[in-house]
Amino acid sequence: MASEHGVRHFQEELEQLKARLLEMGGLAEEQVRLAVKGLVERDRDLIDRVLVSDEPLNALHIEIDSRCFTLLALYQPMAVDLRAIVAAVKINTDLERVGDLAINIAEAARQYSSHLPVKRLIDIPRMATVAQRMLRDALDAFVRRDTDLAQGVLNEDDTLDALKTQIFRELLTYMLQDPATIEPALDLILISRHLERIGDHATNIAEDVIFMVSARDVRHHASESG
Amino acid sequence: MASEHGVRHFQEELEQLKARLLEMGGLAEEQVRLAVKGLVERDRDLIDRVLVSDEPLNALHIEIDSRCFTLLALYQPMAVDLRAIVAAVKINTDLERVGDLAINIAEAARQYSSHLPVKRLIDIPRMATVAQRMLRDALDAFVRRDTDLAQGVLNEDDTLDALKTQIFRELLTYMLQDPATIEPALDLILISRHLERIGDHATNIAEDVIFMVSARDVRHHASESG
Repeated sequence: MASEHGVRHFQEELEQLKARLLEMGGLAEEQVRLAVKGLVERDRDLIDRVLVSDEPLNALHIEIDSRCFTLLALYQPMAVDLRAIVAAVKINTDLERVGDLAINIAEAARQYSSHLPVKRLIDIPRMATVAQRMLRDALDAFVRRDTDLAQGVLNEDDTLDALKTQIFRELLTYMLQDPATIEPALDLILISRHLERIGDHATNIAEDVIFMVSARDVRHHASESG
Repeated sequence: MASEHGVRHFQEELEQLKARLLEMGGLAEEQVRLAVKGLVERDRDLIDRVLVSDEPLNALHIEIDSRCFTLLALYQPMAVDLRAIVAAVKINTDLERVGDLAINIAEAARQYSSHLPVKRLIDIPRMATVAQRMLRDALDAFVRRDTDLAQGVLNEDDTLDALKTQIFRELLTYMLQDPATIEPALDLILISRHLERIGDHATNIAEDVIFMVSARDVRHHASESG
């Protein structure tokens, strides 16, 4: 990538790649939002729509992967640009999994809607809101190369973990009191796990951003202090 | 990578990278094996050993990532070699997650061991055996560039799914009959989900192998027939 011309082209292509990743993140986030809305409102039509809406996400996944390979092969980027492309490959994988998790949530929501509701759902929508915000912030951090924002995403993970534990404990009391709630409560427990994993993917993205910008590896903190 | 010299060095480094990935796969698989052994034998010491043994895996994860960046930056590989390095980056991530899942299994096994056993465990060790074999085969397929072996891994995923469903149904009957089994049965259900996800990671690796060798994307099958 010696010439001025090559550098400009690379930066343009990189901007397009980032725009595609944002688009994919938006689609994945929307799928999660709709799946949880379908769960809360017991809206079978909405749930079914989520279940058949993974096509655009899958097409973007393949397109972004292919853009990354083209950028690596044509421009042979170095240093922060190389790290940005490799981060994009990883982020692309994370976003595809988020789309899969939205489908998993919709499947469990479908099951849940065939039983009487266990309780009014408050903490699960709250978890979804946190997970969606983490995802959005992680992608913004990638586009703006903003390590502070990425660090904020890492800190949010504890919120999600606390909500998951609270949901589990509460549902367990319902199950112990009334066996009729066991099946639907299990659906809700699994949904809370899916949301936790969406937060994990946002965390992965945030870690990739910090590595991309600073070449500092924030994974496996324990090994640093040990 | 014009010179003969450069090509030879690259191939040597690539072989070393593959050896490190195999080593990491071996460690991850061993962690899964020990966590499930600890569960079945209700061996608290073994479970606790798994819980503190993620250090070597984490160190390898960082080392392999760094090797991949060095290979991309120094040799600027093309075509199948480029795809092999990008595949290695992804596989490295998958193996790290398998290590995390072994820890999750050990955590649930620890919880489980504080209750009376729900039943003799047969299907969970069976799931573990299938998942471990899938992981081993997927890595062997990567090293040997063997797409038939990779395809075999993709086919095994249904076995894992069937076992997971069977485990869920059986545990549900226990929970409905006796509330005292609810908590430990939940631990087993979560463990079966963790094992399913280990199979998912093996599947990811197998798909990367097929893409690396043939540049054919086998992900999102539905979109091809649609």
